[in-house]
Amino acid sequence: MAIIVQKFGGTSVGDIERIRNVATKVKRELDNGNQVAVVVSAMAGMTDQLVGYTREMSNRPDPREYDVVVSTGEQITIGLLCMALHNIDVPARSWTGWQLPVRTDDAHAKARIQDIGTEKVLADMAAGRVAVVPGFQGVSDDGRIATLGRGGSDTSAVALAAALHADRCDIYTDVDGVYTCDPRIVTRAHKLDRITYEEMLEMASQGAKVLQTRAVEMGMKHHVRIQVLSSFEDTPGTLVVDEDEIVEQEIVSGITYSRDEAKIVLSHVADRPGIAAGIFGPLAEANIIVDMIVQNVSEDGATTDLTFTVPRGDMDRAVEVLEQIRGDIEIGDIISDPGVVKVSVIGVGMRSHAGVAQRMFQTLADKGINIQVISTSEIKISVLISEDYTELALRALHSAYGLDAE
Amino acid sequence: MAIIVQKFGGTSVGDIERIRNVATKVKRELDNGNQVAVVVSAMAGMTDQLVGYTREMSNRPDPREYDVVVSTGEQITIGLLCMALHNIDVPARSWTGWQLPVRTDDAHAKARIQDIGTEKVLADMAAGRVAVVPGFQGVSDDGRIATLGRGGSDTSAVALAAALHADRCDIYTDVDGVYTCDPRIVTRAHKLDRITYEEMLEMASQGAKVLQTRAVEMGMKHHVRIQVLSSFEDTPGTLVVDEDEIVEQEIVSGITYSRDEAKIVLSHVADRPGIAAGIFGPLAEANIIVDMIVQNVSEDGATTDLTFTVPRGDMDRAVEVLEQIRGDIEIGDIISDPGVVKVSVIGVGMRSHAGVAQRMFQTLADKGINIQVISTSEIKISVLISEDYTELALRALHSAYGLDAE
Repeated sequence: MAIIVQKFGGTSVGDIERIRNVATKVKRELDNGNQVAVVVSAMAGMTDQLVGYTREMSNRPDPREYDVVVSTGEQITIGLLCMALHNIDVPARSWTGWQLPVRTDDAHAKARIQDIGTEKVLADMAAGRVAVVPGFQGVSDDGRIATLGRGGSDTSAVALAAALHADRCDIYTDVDGVYTCDPRIVTRAHKLDRITYEEMLEMASQGAKVLQTRAVEMGMKHHVRIQVLSSFEDTPGTLVVDEDEIVEQEIVSGITYSRDEAKIVLSHVADRPGIAAGIFGPLAEANIIVDMIVQNVSEDGATTDLTFTVPRGDMDRAVEVLEQIRGDIEIGDIISDPGVVKVSVIGVGMRSHAGVAQRMFQTLADKGINIQVISTSEIKISVLISEDYTELALRALHSAYGLDAE
Repeated sequence: MAIIVQKFGGTSVGDIERIRNVATKVKRELDNGNQVAVVVSAMAGMTDQLVGYTREMSNRPDPREYDVVVSTGEQITIGLLCMALHNIDVPARSWTGWQLPVRTDDAHAKARIQDIGTEKVLADMAAGRVAVVPGFQGVSDDGRIATLGRGGSDTSAVALAAALHADRCDIYTDVDGVYTCDPRIVTRAHKLDRITYEEMLEMASQGAKVLQTRAVEMGMKHHVRIQVLSSFEDTPGTLVVDEDEIVEQEIVSGITYSRDEAKIVLSHVADRPGIAAGIFGPLAEANIIVDMIVQNVSEDGATTDLTFTVPRGDMDRAVEVLEQIRGDIEIGDIISDPGVVKVSVIGVGMRSHAGVAQRMFQTLADKGINIQVISTSEIKISVLISEDYTELALRALHSAYGLDAE
């Protein structure tokens, strides 16, 4: 008898009818002979309403009291889902964060799960009852309600699956899996049956907003098999697993892009030790995340050119910060450009294959697309190109790596 | 240093502004040098919304899951009130029902409080922090959330005051106290400074819906001094206390009325043992509460006439039940009349004074008002009269017992 954890997000439990629909999905898993624990979010819009109350009351609410308020959203859903399960004769009981308990640290409003008590809930599940658990919440060391921060329900589900030694953690969402590329742009993109944790981490951080990064990290650490699948369609999703579970690994699993990029070029920066720290320190202090960085020796040999990217919404602020440090550091021109896109090729297979990067560069060159910045990691190659070529680049690369569906 | 419990109902915490207003009332009590615990209801409308969700989901929801859902309303308020207190530099922390804990029996959705843990909260209050506690909820023996049933927040407040050995329990509401009579009818009615628990119980059950009956009973049992006062005006309210705290007791404290009455007369009922049980048993089974009952020997000497009252909304159903039992019991006519009102004179002083009832009968007779049914208790005399005379009767009695304000 397998143990399955199912997780349903806010859209999936958005109203009473949808909660009934969730109940039928839970029943089916139970009818398959499995023991089931379900993790749910607040009904769509509910958390926004609760956060709105706290904002209306206070600019800087006490995070412990903030947690008391916003944790109620998930509590409402667990009660309602149990009722829906009872309606179709499925035995079920709800477990709040403090009842299990889900123990967290004291970082209220952005707490991290430390461990989960499973003795009582496992006994209850063994007796045939579905356990219905609120995502996003736990109880801190001092016995007070703690929440994990927005989107924490995925993490709750994977943590519960790890604690229960579940055979699988199914994350139901509004997409039906992970695709080789954005199907709205590349019509021949196809859904992946399996993907590794590492690839999923790169995908998620690249804007394939399917699964919370913390949840993937937790899954990787505890070897929890995570399935991403649709709440609304009845098709298998994508399984996120260890690399050794994937028998025939493609070299490249997917191609992602991010439009949330802006390029900043600093020309003729005085080339001396500590210059990078002098520039990126003030940006970090201003809470601006710098992503790709390239430094070249300038033509004159005495100064250097520095190119990097920041989130598009932070570009103007970044330029202001740089103007302010001009007094301390010699900088020629500050050129900013929001019209760029980052395109990435991702795949654990590239570790053991040569020529993956070369194929990317050649493919883009064949289409006449100029590469502005390159950065690479063990399983990812990213390039910055002009935004105008986004669609062309994605389709060409998708074909070049043999990802096109038949 | 006195300990004061303050309770604010759903209207008093109906929106963010009103919660801020509550915070200033709490601060004032603290500034007076007192230790303060605050009990709050859900924001007005919130509980209805939550109950609405459960109704939409299920006709007969599991009461334990029902409690999980509806208890969130008060939890939201405690967090928001703490934020409002912090805004004006009042140290405060919230305590949910399970944190204190407020232990209840297992009768979910209508649980009764068994005891309240006070050690931690008293230490916190002694350290200068206001304790903010949700009304209406506790934790049952099996460690699950339990609610006390609608209106249970008054009871929570009085129970907490008893457990904390508080000097006073202030119930803030939308009226400013208990009056000798309904001021909308008797303009010379005045607010009572003090009233005994027994009188308050009679008042409340008579329709002076100021304070929940269970709360008064609990106050009486544990000698908790309860003050009923306005959330919106700054005037002293009415103190509900033991009889011995009232130095100069008036004979009659107040006059109440209830229009929610209907009279049913059964004529020529066979006069034999068990006849009352044969009639009132089926009514009780139909969940119809019978109030005043009078039985007279009929003119013919062999049958009896039976007169009683039921809630006005149940009158037609009561007549249907009676028609059905006609086969078993010989009944002449069934006459029903919704045009009646019950007027009651209440006062613990009447225990030791003769002639109180006589003055009532004489006063009504002087005005030509016919008394249809009479019932009496130790501290109350009630009569049923035609609804047409309601105002006349109330004003005449108010004068006759010397209650008119100067």
